[in-house]
Amino acid sequence: MREITKEEREQGHEFLPKFDAHGLLIAIAVDSRTREILMVAYMDEEALAKTRETGLAHFHSRSRGRLWLKGESSGHFLRVEEIRVDCDQDALELVVQPEGPACHTGARSCFYRRIDGNRLESFES
Amino acid sequence: MREITKEEREQGHEFLPKFDAHGLLIAIAVDSRTREILMVAYMDEEALAKTRETGLAHFHSRSRGRLWLKGESSGHFLRVEEIRVDCDQDALELVVQPEGPACHTGARSCFYRRIDGNRLESFES
Repeated sequence: MREITKEEREQGHEFLPKFDAHGLLIAIAVDSRTREILMVAYMDEEALAKTRETGLAHFHSRSRGRLWLKGESSGHFLRVEEIRVDCDQDALELVVQPEGPACHTGARSCFYRRIDGNRLESFES
Repeated sequence: MREITKEEREQGHEFLPKFDAHGLLIAIAVDSRTREILMVAYMDEEALAKTRETGLAHFHSRSRGRLWLKGESSGHFLRVEEIRVDCDQDALELVVQPEGPACHTGARSCFYRRIDGNRLESFES
């Protein structure tokens, strides 16, 4: 495999996703309407390919060690409208339209608490 | 160390950050004014403590294997206004006021390209 330069990765127009030693990259799902971060998870090459192919967010579940279609059990799929990539191409931002609450707890976003001193405070943003 | 239940971690008001096997968790910096994702990186226990202590975002650089104060060489610090935590407490959202471009390339955000077919397209959001 040819060496990819820092210049190509950061300034180029070729999509060259950089998976880590475990074959994973970070994927952050953001609501296209509100811009709120809904959830963050990992993708491997298979999850990324399935996401691009189907338009539905797929991740790699580290705990279950397998491909995970977000919404496969809840029906709360994330429809991907756009995929953004960061400078070194080891993280993706998925701009999505959520079909229901994104969090398995039933919250719209997984980020429903903030640190307040040494405690967590719940909020609905 | 006592066992932390799923209920405590997801619904509790105690901050119980969950570091992975490498002692890391994901931290996503978001602009408090525009809500734009600026960058994503990892934090270890030390970086989290320093961030909370100083109000400036610190990360753990995996490539350099050390604590990294964002802006230490560029002066482009991220002032942390709020820290949000996700359901299982293995990811943080830092709501920040950036002092200059957040990306080392000079871009305001590290996410300055989107996938367009098989190419990357640059944009300024």
